[in-house]
Amino acid sequence: MLKANEQARADVARLMAELGARARAAARPLAIASAEAKNAALAAMADALVARADEILAANEDDMRRGAQAGLSAALMDRLKLDRQRIEAMAAGVRAIAGLDDPVGSVIAAWERPNGLSIERVRTPLGVIGVIYESRPNVTADAGALCLKAGNAVILRGGSDSARSSAAIHACLTEGLARAGLPQDAIQRVPVTDRAAVGEMLKGLDGNLDVIVPRGGRGLVERVQREARVPVFAHLEGICHLYIDASAMRDMAVAVALNAKMRRTGICGAAETLLVDRAAADTHLLPVLEALAAAGCEIRGDAAVCARFPAALPASEEDWRTEYLDAIISVKLVDGVDEAIRHIETYSSHHTEAIVAEDPRAVERFFNEIDSAILLHNASTQFADGGEFGMGAEIGIATGKMHARGPVGVEQLTSFKYRVRGSGQVRP
Amino acid sequence: MLKANEQARADVARLMAELGARARAAARPLAIASAEAKNAALAAMADALVARADEILAANEDDMRRGAQAGLSAALMDRLKLDRQRIEAMAAGVRAIAGLDDPVGSVIAAWERPNGLSIERVRTPLGVIGVIYESRPNVTADAGALCLKAGNAVILRGGSDSARSSAAIHACLTEGLARAGLPQDAIQRVPVTDRAAVGEMLKGLDGNLDVIVPRGGRGLVERVQREARVPVFAHLEGICHLYIDASAMRDMAVAVALNAKMRRTGICGAAETLLVDRAAADTHLLPVLEALAAAGCEIRGDAAVCARFPAALPASEEDWRTEYLDAIISVKLVDGVDEAIRHIETYSSHHTEAIVAEDPRAVERFFNEIDSAILLHNASTQFADGGEFGMGAEIGIATGKMHARGPVGVEQLTSFKYRVRGSGQVRP
Repeated sequence: MLKANEQARADVARLMAELGARARAAARPLAIASAEAKNAALAAMADALVARADEILAANEDDMRRGAQAGLSAALMDRLKLDRQRIEAMAAGVRAIAGLDDPVGSVIAAWERPNGLSIERVRTPLGVIGVIYESRPNVTADAGALCLKAGNAVILRGGSDSARSSAAIHACLTEGLARAGLPQDAIQRVPVTDRAAVGEMLKGLDGNLDVIVPRGGRGLVERVQREARVPVFAHLEGICHLYIDASAMRDMAVAVALNAKMRRTGICGAAETLLVDRAAADTHLLPVLEALAAAGCEIRGDAAVCARFPAALPASEEDWRTEYLDAIISVKLVDGVDEAIRHIETYSSHHTEAIVAEDPRAVERFFNEIDSAILLHNASTQFADGGEFGMGAEIGIATGKMHARGPVGVEQLTSFKYRVRGSGQVRP
Repeated sequence: MLKANEQARADVARLMAELGARARAAARPLAIASAEAKNAALAAMADALVARADEILAANEDDMRRGAQAGLSAALMDRLKLDRQRIEAMAAGVRAIAGLDDPVGSVIAAWERPNGLSIERVRTPLGVIGVIYESRPNVTADAGALCLKAGNAVILRGGSDSARSSAAIHACLTEGLARAGLPQDAIQRVPVTDRAAVGEMLKGLDGNLDVIVPRGGRGLVERVQREARVPVFAHLEGICHLYIDASAMRDMAVAVALNAKMRRTGICGAAETLLVDRAAADTHLLPVLEALAAAGCEIRGDAAVCARFPAALPASEEDWRTEYLDAIISVKLVDGVDEAIRHIETYSSHHTEAIVAEDPRAVERFFNEIDSAILLHNASTQFADGGEFGMGAEIGIATGKMHARGPVGVEQLTSFKYRVRGSGQVRP
């Protein structure tokens, strides 16, 4: 039995090494593929997704049946489920990515030196991206299309629950690549559900994986961040704060708080903690809390909040560190922007924070002194999204400070190089 | 004895953890320090370097004496040696860094969304930088000043050979910080020469180190790249290529080749391999090789080169993979830009490559298809340098594709965040 396990592990290691080598080989022609070829592939992928919808739906029904037998939760079943509308949305997403500007070769900066050398910094693909995700089969299309647009080869490792759906979607992607004359190895799918495959990706596939993007729950992201020997674009959690300054317009504060918490409670940009300026305790606090409670939100307050809003439950130290992803919010009165900044720098996961205020000095301090990926003024934290930023699509949001930060779109999936043009200059 | 070793290791671990915590604590006020405060500190550092030159020279004499006793090579002794001129150059370097634009807070990109949200991407410091270097004591001042300019705290770990010189220089840096009212922990020096200190840095000091920059020989860089659990800005080697196309102007080809190889042979941007278009074998090859040989360069050629230039030694497969850092060059005839690109993509360390050509199609292909940090047309590879790029100063050159690539100057030592300004927008 032990022997069989060892054999299986060795087989997975060999398979993954092969996938890595093929991805690296595909990355070269892909890096110099024209924008037209990549867009033709994307258009053909979208066509194939629509044309082969029945095939995808049949595979998805199979996944759903097995999921039901395995007792998957209703939430997981919903993430897993595809219908004709979701497939069309997937195809539309791929077409939208085709419509984005091609990042590869675009000039980021250009300058001339006194000696006549002209220097350009231009975008290049990163190389090979590994995407590790869980039950949503549409990530297969999104991630495959985004990586291709940026000229990268990609290795997709989806969850076992959605394996058949993902395989059917992946077949449409490789059909698109083939139609455009691009290497089919540009978008590979790990064909086994063995967890050892993830372990191999985290080790970097012999240098053939340049970056890993985990998409899924905290457990997955934590494992990837802890074990990966290659760079990771991810956020572990979104403990996002909304601070309401005494200078805030009250109606705006109510509307922004309601949206930041309750529009969708399960996304990383949802607000988890509300900080209210003590100087606004008599004017803003109750209308905001009443609106949240009326919308079905549980309020957990510090002592001062509970004293003023008896329906609130007492918040513990743990609450300030918790990403609820649910209709619950922790609320604290603070001494102005100063204490708000201190609280956020102590408890935030550095994803997204918002301030509602009319006082420009408070906004300025909030913007300067808080070190989170996204800071918003007089707008909902739920705008923390590549699409809302105008990036077209995102493969995720990163809270690390290296390379990519905030929404990770096609530009963030690129590197750059310098092109220097001279007329025979030599260095003195 | 074993117990004593364990105790010593535990002491170093505790010391390093403390350094990390203090650096992180200093990074916050530093991140929001004004450009004026940072520049005042830099000016005071430069003043202190000049004012305390005697102290630095005495410490350096001590290092030199111990180095001579320990039998350091002449090259190492030269790197170690300081004199009044070198100290003044160091001070001038620090002043030049003060004169650079402050990267922190500068707007990299700005755009407006249809819903009226205005989005800015602005530079922020990275956090805490670790610099691990060998015998050159001037790195203490360069690296300390560059990191400070970008708003980062830094932990400097210099070699034991230059420990006393570095300590004396470091005292000038902290004097400058104190005079400007900035935290002295912003620039810390590891006060022990124990190698275990490097091991602790590679582990990331409990998350208190954001990036490591190794400056030194191949052994050091290899160890850091292999063991570091935090991102690394480095290049392992510079196997730089010069390709001479048949369309090249002959005199330019000779001048560029001579400079690329022989201006300074020991730097990472020195050319190590010369590729000559077979179509230029009768016109360009001999003048270039004769000029190199006349300048004292050893020629190692492939069979075709040796047949035409009998003074050449035969090159082995190993030669194409070797960074000589010496007056030696490997030379190969290739079938045009096509084979030049193939050779470079096979053997290059992706640092810097140059083409001499008048044919714009050859240049275009060279620029598009080679994936190295720096590509030059009609200019010497020895321009691969942050100063020559107009970045003012560099902490090194990176060949990785994540975050920083090519010369690493103040801009590359920053991250960014998004500032979003609204007027009450909520997400539909």
